[in-house]
Amino acid sequence: MSVSISPLAPKHVPDMPAIAGVRLATAAAGIRYAGRTDVLLALFDRDTTVAGVFTRSKCPSAPVEWCRAHLKSGKARALVVNSGNANAFTGKTGREACKFTAQIAAKAAGVKPADIFLASTGVIGEPLNAKAFDGVMEGLVAGARPGEFLAAAKAIMTTDTFPKVATARAKIDKTTVTINGIAKGAGMIAPDMATMLSFIFTDAAISSPALQALLKDSVANTFNAVTIDGDTSTSDTLLLFATGRAGNARIARASDPKLREFKKALHSVLADLSEQVARDGEGARKLVEIVVEGAKTDQSARRIAMAIANSPLVKTAIAGEDANWGRVVMAVGKAGEPADRDKLAIWFGGIRVAHKGARDPGYDEAAVSAEMKKPEIYLKVALGLGKGRDRVLTCDLTKEYVAINGDYRS
Amino acid sequence: MSVSISPLAPKHVPDMPAIAGVRLATAAAGIRYAGRTDVLLALFDRDTTVAGVFTRSKCPSAPVEWCRAHLKSGKARALVVNSGNANAFTGKTGREACKFTAQIAAKAAGVKPADIFLASTGVIGEPLNAKAFDGVMEGLVAGARPGEFLAAAKAIMTTDTFPKVATARAKIDKTTVTINGIAKGAGMIAPDMATMLSFIFTDAAISSPALQALLKDSVANTFNAVTIDGDTSTSDTLLLFATGRAGNARIARASDPKLREFKKALHSVLADLSEQVARDGEGARKLVEIVVEGAKTDQSARRIAMAIANSPLVKTAIAGEDANWGRVVMAVGKAGEPADRDKLAIWFGGIRVAHKGARDPGYDEAAVSAEMKKPEIYLKVALGLGKGRDRVLTCDLTKEYVAINGDYRS
Repeated sequence: MSVSISPLAPKHVPDMPAIAGVRLATAAAGIRYAGRTDVLLALFDRDTTVAGVFTRSKCPSAPVEWCRAHLKSGKARALVVNSGNANAFTGKTGREACKFTAQIAAKAAGVKPADIFLASTGVIGEPLNAKAFDGVMEGLVAGARPGEFLAAAKAIMTTDTFPKVATARAKIDKTTVTINGIAKGAGMIAPDMATMLSFIFTDAAISSPALQALLKDSVANTFNAVTIDGDTSTSDTLLLFATGRAGNARIARASDPKLREFKKALHSVLADLSEQVARDGEGARKLVEIVVEGAKTDQSARRIAMAIANSPLVKTAIAGEDANWGRVVMAVGKAGEPADRDKLAIWFGGIRVAHKGARDPGYDEAAVSAEMKKPEIYLKVALGLGKGRDRVLTCDLTKEYVAINGDYRS
Repeated sequence: MSVSISPLAPKHVPDMPAIAGVRLATAAAGIRYAGRTDVLLALFDRDTTVAGVFTRSKCPSAPVEWCRAHLKSGKARALVVNSGNANAFTGKTGREACKFTAQIAAKAAGVKPADIFLASTGVIGEPLNAKAFDGVMEGLVAGARPGEFLAAAKAIMTTDTFPKVATARAKIDKTTVTINGIAKGAGMIAPDMATMLSFIFTDAAISSPALQALLKDSVANTFNAVTIDGDTSTSDTLLLFATGRAGNARIARASDPKLREFKKALHSVLADLSEQVARDGEGARKLVEIVVEGAKTDQSARRIAMAIANSPLVKTAIAGEDANWGRVVMAVGKAGEPADRDKLAIWFGGIRVAHKGARDPGYDEAAVSAEMKKPEIYLKVALGLGKGRDRVLTCDLTKEYVAINGDYRS
């Protein structure tokens, strides 16, 4: 398995400021990996609100079920994340592992187990030995400090090739608030599956229902608009914690106009992290941005964009630096959404390659080939039917993807 | 690109008998390939009935549109198929190429253009030079002979690694009738896309509406239950021609009990050909049979089976000979169909690997590993919810798939 950093990794890693009311600590509990951290503890001040969105899988992991159940109170005092074991498809022992972890974290931190949030990523079907946390929990609580976001991002990696962090600031009234985010992407460990985890922290004072609405709204065009291979994990978890320590007057409703800047900043953090997930897709050598416009509705545009983004034939063509617009036509056709072949136009980069249901009369093979050699590929489809528009991110499908996911036993 | 025959190719190729009322000829028109046949002409006796099913793509090829329009009469006198160019996404010139081809075939055969059926497979977006047929059509008509089915199957290949033929007999009343079929599978040619073509010929006398009902019924669990990569071609075409020359009293309705044996025989031909398509999937090294049972409905079982069959993570795991049932759970979960994690059971070969939402207590890694080394993998999922059942065929996802579809420019 390759351990080199993705060529698509961001060139610049931002300095991550502290967030008032958030303290972080990491430890090596030896869940699966040797010589690296694999547990993250985040402690939150009193009155921290929380929102979350999770995998739509019908077979979610035990921590996903734990979080869903405890999200109802809207309050959070701690987050415990481990890498190396997903605690998924582990039956009754999985639920017990969650309960045990929450109990020891609550005891060490002096809070209630119901206020502890949990996430796990790694091997599936293997019972999670939660006792391993017992040995490190008190030390984690004692050592928790502000501003350790890069270390936190590293502790939740599986086969991610780089840690993913993002930060933004916004004003609510006259108070400056900060939003920090970390994420892990689609990495694999035998016999693992892709799991996407992301945690966002802010010092803004925002009610939990408002936070939930903001998160749901912003995820649609960020994390939910990214696909690596169309395979949905049992463990996808995105949690947003707001400590309220920045001192703004608490915002009750997502529709409050005071949140205008905050919404933008939150969106930028989610967009940044989700793009980093695409940039670190398994075996990825090209980041692919797909824009569909002129669809009947935005939803229809999303389905067509996803049909293109998940097509193995489109993705292998891009890996081969081939502007194979015929396969894009195929993917549009199979999406099952309204489309009129004779109105279809397709661009690679800024170059129109197909127009009115046939190859563009001005098609210039050399110019398009040069475009396809770039590490970032922009693909646009215009349907000419309506005003529906969408944008999704994906990566190419390379032999390395097959190697990462198929070769590890050999 | 590999030209060696798929290791999954059938060991035995049946002798294909003649079908009374069907004459075949092939020629090399030089559409794209050198040194091989690329045009097939089939001539049918008067009163031949026809049925067809086509791609569900919203962007179908010009020949698909031609066939759909001319299927209404229920009559056929000839079929012209070419490989090397799919005549898809070719706009107005594509429609004109169809018209021209039908006209010259009709003139040479002394029949009406409306009774000519057409299919094309190969490169997309490239105008089809139908004039190339002009030079070979009279020779094809003059040379058409019964019983050339293997040659016909070879002429329609693109990057198939072996020709696909199947045959069966049945009795209608006291008359023995024969059904022959040929197919081409998911092969690729730069910048091509997978196209599935299949043509079935019988000497039975069956009305066109009855034929259409039989075909529709039989395709659901044969060709429509096969997937290579989840990508649907613009050109998929399956046509069934019945010459009536066997001499049985013509059957008007598909529900006629006299068709009992014929239905079985037709199904066996379609099942045989569609399995051959899966065996010749690009880069395939393993044939994968997926059975889902205990679903709420058969349709739900189909969706879950297809989610497993199209999952890149399941397919790469099988390529890596890894009984990665965690990824099967993932695929069940993402299908969006009713599923209860804690009732799920999964088998590889005859070995149960997961049971009641967790790893099977009797899991034997060595036994399962031995099962995964076989060229044919049987994967069963029991949902424990109802009586819905389905079966689909697919193949593994190998580096060769990526090479075939991504490397050809290099």
